[in-house]
Amino acid sequence: MIDVIMNGEVLKTVAKAITALVSEARIHFLNQGMHSRAVDPANVAMVIVDVPRESFEVYNVDEEKVIGVDVDRIYDISKSIKGKDLVELLLSETELKIKFGSVEYSVSLIDPSAIRKEPRIPELELPVKVVMDAGEFKKAVTAADKISDHVIFRSDKTGFIVEAKGDVDKITFHMSESELIEFNGAEAKSMFSIEYLKEFCKIAGSGDLLTIRLGTNYPVRLLFELSGGKVKVEYILAPRVEAE
Amino acid sequence: MIDVIMNGEVLKTVAKAITALVSEARIHFLNQGMHSRAVDPANVAMVIVDVPRESFEVYNVDEEKVIGVDVDRIYDISKSIKGKDLVELLLSETELKIKFGSVEYSVSLIDPSAIRKEPRIPELELPVKVVMDAGEFKKAVTAADKISDHVIFRSDKTGFIVEAKGDVDKITFHMSESELIEFNGAEAKSMFSIEYLKEFCKIAGSGDLLTIRLGTNYPVRLLFELSGGKVKVEYILAPRVEAE
Amino acid sequence: MIDVIMNGEVLKTVAKAITALVSEARIHFLNQGMHSRAVDPANVAMVIVDVPRESFEVYNVDEEKVIGVDVDRIYDISKSIKGKDLVELLLSETELKIKFGSVEYSVSLIDPSAIRKEPRIPELELPVKVVMDAGEFKKAVTAADKISDHVIFRSDKTGFIVEAKGDVDKITFHMSESELIEFNGAEAKSMFSIEYLKEFCKIAGSGDLLTIRLGTNYPVRLLFELSGGKVKVEYILAPRVEAE
Repeated sequence: MIDVIMNGEVLKTVAKAITALVSEARIHFLNQGMHSRAVDPANVAMVIVDVPRESFEVYNVDEEKVIGVDVDRIYDISKSIKGKDLVELLLSETELKIKFGSVEYSVSLIDPSAIRKEPRIPELELPVKVVMDAGEFKKAVTAADKISDHVIFRSDKTGFIVEAKGDVDKITFHMSESELIEFNGAEAKSMFSIEYLKEFCKIAGSGDLLTIRLGTNYPVRLLFELSGGKVKVEYILAPRVEAE
Repeated sequence: MIDVIMNGEVLKTVAKAITALVSEARIHFLNQGMHSRAVDPANVAMVIVDVPRESFEVYNVDEEKVIGVDVDRIYDISKSIKGKDLVELLLSETELKIKFGSVEYSVSLIDPSAIRKEPRIPELELPVKVVMDAGEFKKAVTAADKISDHVIFRSDKTGFIVEAKGDVDKITFHMSESELIEFNGAEAKSMFSIEYLKEFCKIAGSGDLLTIRLGTNYPVRLLFELSGGKVKVEYILAPRVEAE
Repeated sequence: MIDVIMNGEVLKTVAKAITALVSEARIHFLNQGMHSRAVDPANVAMVIVDVPRESFEVYNVDEEKVIGVDVDRIYDISKSIKGKDLVELLLSETELKIKFGSVEYSVSLIDPSAIRKEPRIPELELPVKVVMDAGEFKKAVTAADKISDHVIFRSDKTGFIVEAKGDVDKITFHMSESELIEFNGAEAKSMFSIEYLKEFCKIAGSGDLLTIRLGTNYPVRLLFELSGGKVKVEYILAPRVEAE
């Protein structure tokens, strides 16, 4: 039997994080918590979502199980739940019941074998480690989006830098070590598509913690700690080849 | 002479309630208050609006009178009045003056005989009586709207239930007697079009009182008490024939 | 060297005021402050913007200078600055740097000689002087916009009046001397295009001061004092010929 209760904010964050990349996904109910990961159809980005069992109000999972669900639908439903309200997920053979307040949704399950196989998480050696407020990162991406479709992440002794160039203008976002929560001072530089970064930022806001692992012409890892640390969402994004 | 003053919220509620079904309507200024009723062009729903004279700040009606107005226009105007601000309606032979703050609108009257005749209010024997918060009802309708275009209202010993079925999912909204303000425990079941219910709900919010009278394969009566009880709006909606 | 610091609200107001009429403009950094003026492509309206040096937090202008900028771009950037946050404008030979928080934009300059020559400010004898809250004026224009594309400004002994006529309705906005902040009681009447007035009103809100100078079949001058008096924006709008 699988019967778990969490607050609405947690469900919303999980669903939103996954819909950034795919519309159907496998959700694992493991002993240590809920887990999901998926790769977008273009194979450019991966999402890894973890909600530890301590983040649930109730976590009754007799036996580990994987289900397939329409995440777009669940995100849509989760939008009508208030953040602090509790929501219950109750699993039967063929249905997932989502209960909150006086409302009970029944959503059909998708055969997990019909959903694209889960990716292996790549092992990456990424020298730079930056920890910052996710809201600041979101500001940088939003600003860059106004003038370009790609952005350079750069790290050097002076701090962490986001740069974008338009036809006639340029934006530089610079955070020095003192403005960052943690910074190991390593050097690296890679270019990324803003389209993806914009999607990733949608789940985060001011007050959420973001850990960035950056290499040179290598994928970047963006680990967001959301909903007061209850949900961990990591995105891995492939670099764009620099034409410069 | 007809010269009445009410707060802006009352005028807005009246106009919004009627525009849900028709764009032109007759308004009666009676000794006991303002009254209007109309049927939508498809003959599926009726609206009955009553604003008792006690709900006005000033109610000078020398002689009972009926006028024809463009309700869409009045709703449009009423949106620019703040809820607590007073608004005056002043009637001349050919015009309705709507005055608030420093603004005075003059709206041409429509010959009432050019507007579709008012319906008779049907006598309906409806066994179920439910009184609930209109905001809860609105949530149920909004949720159901996401997955279907029709909805079943059902009442049994366990309480009042709203159900909708989509292709792959289902929603059940259940309120037990203890969650309802009043409930007579009678049984009935009818199906309705969500399109109409959505329109009706637009006038109401959390804190407004809703009385539902339900029968089996019979029209439903939805009586909303709005603007702190100053405005009574009743909708009568014909059932859809169940294809189940 | 030109290096000035102001609050974000001031920059936003300046850019918004100018974009109402043109997308590229000359900005003068004078000893007494920042100044700009421009005429719209149809030659119907002029905007004159002044930010006295006292309105800046820092105003380092060694030598008076005029630059050409893409005001749409600057307005776009300014929207991401919070009103109370400080923003720095730093001028180099070819670029204008706009710095706030951790963000630095570099915007290319436009050769001022490539931008339409600045208009001379016309000398107008306008008998009526009205001073009022800009928010009230905005309400009148917004209301009139619902029923017509032109509006009459009229002043007589009873006060200042804005009138618009639609096919079947009419709106009159009337402010008596006691409701106005200042009024000289002179008489005049002219008709104007609502399209322009709507654009002008976007910069102002309740609490901002508006001085109107009106003549008969003559341009009107609308002087807005914005951002707590830090920015002065004057629009001069040509009248429409009355077809009445």
